Amino acid sequence: MILFRKSYIRGIYIYKAVYNSTRVMSQRVEHDYNYSNSKFYTNKVVAKVLIGSVATGAIGYYLFAKRNKYSVAAEASLSEDESISAGKFKDGLPSFSLKEVGHHNSKDSNIWVTYKEGVYDITDFVDKHPGGDQILIAAGSSVEPFWLLYGVHENKHVYKILETYRIGNLQKDEIGALSDDMSDPYGKEPIRHPILQPASIKPFNAECPPSLLIENFITPNEIFYVRNHLPVPVIDPATYELEVEIEGQNRTATFTLNELKKLPKCTIVATIMCAGNRRGDMTKVKAVKGLNWGPGAVGTATWTGVRLSDILRTVGVNEDDGYKHVQFEGIDYDVTGKSYGASIPIWKALDKRGDALLAYEMNGVPIPRDHGFPIRVIVPGVVGARNVKWLGRIIVSEKESESHWQQNDYKGFSPSTDWDTVDFTKSPAIQELPVISAICQPNEGDKVKVVDGCILVRGYAWSGGGQKIVRVDVTVDAGKTWHVANLDNQDTAEPPQHWAWTLWSVRIPVDESAKNLEIWAKAVDSSYNTQPESFENIWNLRGCS
Amino acid sequence: MILFRKSYIRGIYIYKAVYNSTRVMSQRVEHDYNYSNSKFYTNKVVAKVLIGSVATGAIGYYLFAKRNKYSVAAEASLSEDESISAGKFKDGLPSFSLKEVGHHNSKDSNIWVTYKEGVYDITDFVDKHPGGDQILIAAGSSVEPFWLLYGVHENKHVYKILETYRIGNLQKDEIGALSDDMSDPYGKEPIRHPILQPASIKPFNAECPPSLLIENFITPNEIFYVRNHLPVPVIDPATYELEVEIEGQNRTATFTLNELKKLPKCTIVATIMCAGNRRGDMTKVKAVKGLNWGPGAVGTATWTGVRLSDILRTVGVNEDDGYKHVQFEGIDYDVTGKSYGASIPIWKALDKRGDALLAYEMNGVPIPRDHGFPIRVIVPGVVGARNVKWLGRIIVSEKESESHWQQNDYKGFSPSTDWDTVDFTKSPAIQELPVISAICQPNEGDKVKVVDGCILVRGYAWSGGGQKIVRVDVTVDAGKTWHVANLDNQDTAEPPQHWAWTLWSVRIPVDESAKNLEIWAKAVDSSYNTQPESFENIWNLRGCS
Repeated sequence: MILFRKSYIRGIYIYKAVYNSTRVMSQRVEHDYNYSNSKFYTNKVVAKVLIGSVATGAIGYYLFAKRNKYSVAAEASLSEDESISAGKFKDGLPSFSLKEVGHHNSKDSNIWVTYKEGVYDITDFVDKHPGGDQILIAAGSSVEPFWLLYGVHENKHVYKILETYRIGNLQKDEIGALSDDMSDPYGKEPIRHPILQPASIKPFNAECPPSLLIENFITPNEIFYVRNHLPVPVIDPATYELEVEIEGQNRTATFTLNELKKLPKCTIVATIMCAGNRRGDMTKVKAVKGLNWGPGAVGTATWTGVRLSDILRTVGVNEDDGYKHVQFEGIDYDVTGKSYGASIPIWKALDKRGDALLAYEMNGVPIPRDHGFPIRVIVPGVVGARNVKWLGRIIVSEKESESHWQQNDYKGFSPSTDWDTVDFTKSPAIQELPVISAICQPNEGDKVKVVDGCILVRGYAWSGGGQKIVRVDVTVDAGKTWHVANLDNQDTAEPPQHWAWTLWSVRIPVDESAKNLEIWAKAVDSSYNTQPESFENIWNLRGCS
Repeated sequence: MILFRKSYIRGIYIYKAVYNSTRVMSQRVEHDYNYSNSKFYTNKVVAKVLIGSVATGAIGYYLFAKRNKYSVAAEASLSEDESISAGKFKDGLPSFSLKEVGHHNSKDSNIWVTYKEGVYDITDFVDKHPGGDQILIAAGSSVEPFWLLYGVHENKHVYKILETYRIGNLQKDEIGALSDDMSDPYGKEPIRHPILQPASIKPFNAECPPSLLIENFITPNEIFYVRNHLPVPVIDPATYELEVEIEGQNRTATFTLNELKKLPKCTIVATIMCAGNRRGDMTKVKAVKGLNWGPGAVGTATWTGVRLSDILRTVGVNEDDGYKHVQFEGIDYDVTGKSYGASIPIWKALDKRGDALLAYEMNGVPIPRDHGFPIRVIVPGVVGARNVKWLGRIIVSEKESESHWQQNDYKGFSPSTDWDTVDFTKSPAIQELPVISAICQPNEGDKVKVVDGCILVRGYAWSGGGQKIVRVDVTVDAGKTWHVANLDNQDTAEPPQHWAWTLWSVRIPVDESAKNLEIWAKAVDSSYNTQPESFENIWNLRGCS
């Protein structure tokens, strides 16, 4: 599988790469290595990969190139081309419901997909698909989300091929089905990419499958994990205003989106992670309260916006004023009218080196609704929960946010603290997150190919507080031999401003006669902190990292 | 043993406290708990306590009070009192060598001690000593180092009692024996407190016994661990000059000690730790290269001096100049004339929040020779090795220090890296240290008293990078039950400027029928980093934390 490693010099000839890979793979011997592990709490992975690892390698790479160079141009040419009629309603064809389409999701029942208003039976096309079997991800549903990801489809040639497989129209009342249910607080949710694996639907929380996650150093917006505590608000950027209040002063400053965009612009690369990332593994020790995340509740993006320190200085807040916290309130409300809230220590907000941003762009485009449109606070190195989305109000205060999420959630406790004995006032609100790593390839239970006596292990590692990953050690013999992984992708920023994760890989010699393999990985950060060995001794009732 | 906990309201009535304690203890049942442990790498303690834990508690407390309030006054009154003749040469008495005195170190051979030029047989006094058995620490040697620590002795009444036990004079040529051997590069070493347990003599490296170490939040200078790489230089403060060079500029600024002292003064409380602290435990897994430290290569002091950032700005260095490192050179030289050297990243030197100091005082007095007189760089939150003593030169540079200690030492590696495969260029120089804790009471192998069904466990915890300890968990049943320790002494400074350790204690219920007990402790810092469980998986060939 080493041939599938991301290679920047190959350009966008991704399908060629896939073919090459497939040929080489057919010569390989497959062994029954069942992947599992019990140590180093970062290593357990519960998510199942949705697509084969071959396809993943290719898709991931393409996605990376696409998001960064080609997406705008491709979309522009598409909308300007009037000759394209793919997906438009066609008279004289039968109508099908989404449910009916859904039944046709395997070769046995034929492979149906939808595109806009069109329904297609692509069974005969599957074997001809240049991207191989990954076309089956869309079986029984729409190809649109995948085409958004794999932009090579956005050309006339593809649309023409597609229309040759046309069998009908999508039932009229199901076009755009997911939006505009005003009776449901979740009736205005954005449409999400189906590859996101939900941990909950309302509110929407979902993660990217791990093997796809590590294909991109910069996580595409479409597959960036979503952690919402409340319904996604609908915000009109034209009327949006950010309020900034300084406690004890009788004035509130406001900024429109345009005013914010006129202030000096700053871009950083930062990983955001949920405190509950990999909670699913902790749950195996003993049940915890919280979403059952795999290792995909993490992502890395470029964030562009205005420095929080600039805003605070603009409104007259200085280091020596004695304020201790900066509180954030979202525009997402619960049924009682309370908004999501959190706070950070004022030093992190005021310190230019802290790099806290009021971001309006994520990976070069306006922040998507699920990620905080139009403004999200980015507090790099700090738990996702303080990176408040849909920011409506900033309060400079002597106190932390009084919100549930600051006071009675996102805190760590001793493994022996239970819901009868827990006292949330005794534990500090999580800010910086500790060092973590995860094995994303193989997945737990995968059969793993042995090439030249070695298996390929890949994953990510990250540490909060601006620390850089300096080493990842991997073992397949319970620590008798540790292999130092290659740090394949790493930002050049130095601590204490190193905000992004590190992608790593290592080829490890294995005993080919073995039937099962347990892989451990541990990361070391620039403060030489490393990971504890097991979840047992860091278990906590909220399942925080 | 809970009665011996440090209690600030008791004032200096330390001897009374000791008597109380002894009485209470005689009513207790002693169990054969043998303390040992194998997990959580912070827990193994190899150092043997030199004095009983009762005495330690008392001594430690007194020492704390003494150093902070009474030492200057007591010394002044002593030198002004002309009636004191204790320890002066007395005609007509026999002379004894240090060796002869050394033979008389037990009740069987009588207890002899020296004080200045006097030799005393105090066998009959031992049972009358208000401080109990701890007088035996000095058996066969000089009481002076202990009297420096336990300043209550510095009064006429004590001197009078002492002289009643006079039996002779110390052999003339052995008075002040330790100094002024010019043929030995180590001939000018300072006299050290004998309770310091040496890891090496030349250069001198020594630590405080753990049970005494945790008696003081502020470690007294006399028992602060010493880590010297080379002989201690003799520096005349009157002619001392600090040189500051900016690489690429043809000028060197100099500062005399008086000039430095005239600059704005800053005091911080900071813990300094050797990267090899607790290396002795790592050695048990497999031999490492380095001094065999127990858990005492750490200490906390108040450091007073001028901010390094002020000095750098004074000489014209600014954030945007593009320099990356600040190098330090000591005035301690090896045989080739090379000095000890190290460097830190420039952000740490320039950031006011980094709190790097050029310190001239340690705990309110001029920094002792062993700790860097007259100027030591204090880089709080950063490994001791970068806190360069006897500072002679600062170089603002684009490069790290080229010194051996920056380039080929004080770096971490994978457990499987050995001396055949190690490449020091592949690993970053240790700066911030990771979270650590140590159990200092009981010591490994101690018999532990059970009081009301509980044992008392005490220790310290610390984390580098300005992180605060937020929790210490302790277990005596291999993690089935974790007990949250009380954080007894902690500085009020908040992260990321929390530089001092935390002293903790916890009473843990134990099964009194058990004969052996294994105690584990783990600390959690404000970034929620915690400690790995075993030394096996963090073992590294230089034995760094």
